[in-house]
Amino acid sequence: MTRIAVVGCGVVGSSWALVFSRAGFDVAVWDAVPAAVQQTLAFVRESIDSLAKQGLGGNENADTVCARLHPCATLEEALAGVDYVQESAPERVQIKRELYQRLDTLAAPNVVLASSTSGLPASSFTDHLTTRARCLVVHPINPPHLIPLVELVPAPWTDPAVLERAATLMEQIGQAPIRLSREINGFVVNRLQSALLGEAFRLVEDGVLSVADVDKAVADGLGLRWFFMGPFETIDLNAQQGVAEYCRNLGPMYYGLAKEQADPREWGAPLVTAIEQQRRTVTSADALPARRAWRDRCLAAFVAAKRRVLREQGNV
Amino acid sequence: MTRIAVVGCGVVGSSWALVFSRAGFDVAVWDAVPAAVQQTLAFVRESIDSLAKQGLGGNENADTVCARLHPCATLEEALAGVDYVQESAPERVQIKRELYQRLDTLAAPNVVLASSTSGLPASSFTDHLTTRARCLVVHPINPPHLIPLVELVPAPWTDPAVLERAATLMEQIGQAPIRLSREINGFVVNRLQSALLGEAFRLVEDGVLSVADVDKAVADGLGLRWFFMGPFETIDLNAQQGVAEYCRNLGPMYYGLAKEQADPREWGAPLVTAIEQQRRTVTSADALPARRAWRDRCLAAFVAAKRRVLREQGNV
Repeated sequence: MTRIAVVGCGVVGSSWALVFSRAGFDVAVWDAVPAAVQQTLAFVRESIDSLAKQGLGGNENADTVCARLHPCATLEEALAGVDYVQESAPERVQIKRELYQRLDTLAAPNVVLASSTSGLPASSFTDHLTTRARCLVVHPINPPHLIPLVELVPAPWTDPAVLERAATLMEQIGQAPIRLSREINGFVVNRLQSALLGEAFRLVEDGVLSVADVDKAVADGLGLRWFFMGPFETIDLNAQQGVAEYCRNLGPMYYGLAKEQADPREWGAPLVTAIEQQRRTVTSADALPARRAWRDRCLAAFVAAKRRVLREQGNV
Repeated sequence: MTRIAVVGCGVVGSSWALVFSRAGFDVAVWDAVPAAVQQTLAFVRESIDSLAKQGLGGNENADTVCARLHPCATLEEALAGVDYVQESAPERVQIKRELYQRLDTLAAPNVVLASSTSGLPASSFTDHLTTRARCLVVHPINPPHLIPLVELVPAPWTDPAVLERAATLMEQIGQAPIRLSREINGFVVNRLQSALLGEAFRLVEDGVLSVADVDKAVADGLGLRWFFMGPFETIDLNAQQGVAEYCRNLGPMYYGLAKEQADPREWGAPLVTAIEQQRRTVTSADALPARRAWRDRCLAAFVAAKRRVLREQGNV
């Protein structure tokens, strides 16, 4: 049985502890700040009950799951006997460099060292290690206990077998890993989001439509299919003979649009101020926390609905 | 009570007939091909029962709804006494020019003439009309009985009051209208899709990841939030103080990515062939129709789930 170390107990690390422990793994939990470890334990316990209420319950009660969590006072203790480390330390390269220096010598050589970093390439904090071939990025979309996608990004020196071990583990615990062939700025999710946001900001800056109407275009339109099908499957099913026919028919139109969208723009202060003002008429600054809680409840409910529907409809 | 004319009875016109009749409006239905009118009537009847089975039933049975549909033998008959025309004729500018020439004189002057066109600007087929100020594009995302978004696009000569009348009607029937200030290639939905697809094709062409993994990045990641929140609300809630803070922190990162994404690329034949081959290993050519039926069942189930959850969670 694989034993996991969760290193770093912020929001992301806590969600990882929940994911791994619910999947049946023993999880050593460590943070440089001992109180953070206790917060993670409390988070896992509370989450199991609240997820059950939201239709996302597992087969086990909170006591059973929490018994798999092992709070550790030292990093040495956390690494003893583990097979895989999920590191979720602060996003500062110097902190990660020093932490990986310690992991390099403290973790047995065959242990996978996976970083949750959302933006730092693994090469920026593992180049100096003796055992750098077992390091990679395993980037979740927050929170991983609700959003399955995980980006696996190798450094130039990452052993391909290490990437496969991480992918297999992610599938075992019910996440959806994607494999990048190499390091690339923003990884994939932020690059796709960047492309859409770039056009969204451009349309608002050019006075084509309001911020609220851009949001509607996605939430009441494009997002309904993207919720369960990616962009390629969407267009593949939108032409009788499939994606090649779609590209033949619409490729020239999209190329024309791409040329109109080829001006990268900074998000200037006046534009950002205008967007902020429009957003605050919908959700006031005071109401942001309540709206976030609403988002989280909706997200949990939609994830539960998605699991149910995909189970009912099968995979045709 | 507003009376509607559905002009053109293909897939889009048939769905419009369903939407308007379920919303309680009398609907005159006409097509240049009389058999198409009968297909629309049959489609509405079948859809009401199948939607009810999918948790999307209304308060009325099929007989009540279908009694509001009035098949018409001539365009003159269809336009008698209507307040609003939803035109869904073939997407050829010459066909639309000739049709609008007839609508120009046959429809009473205060009748709104709305085109379902997905790509032609209203200016391309209404410039020659005497009453062109009452023409605009009201572009649904197919099928409008499941996807609420509608793009309202005025020609340079469209009366703003006409656009507001169309928006009000769309809200009355439960659609989600967005108002563009002017004609723009691809309108908004295709421009947003273009931006995302451009990056998706770029990542595959550059060998960063597979087609299936791009699809996962959306369907198991980005799409979960975009299903119910647009891109602006998503980032607004992702920083403690809202969107301005988000832009301050991450604007430079996104500007860097935008510069890397600024090369518009044609979808070349080798790339399209590679994508087609990858897609066919997931869904064979033979299996495409069954997969489309699966998509439609899932979409209906997710729309039903979304309505239920948003009702339960309220609007915070």
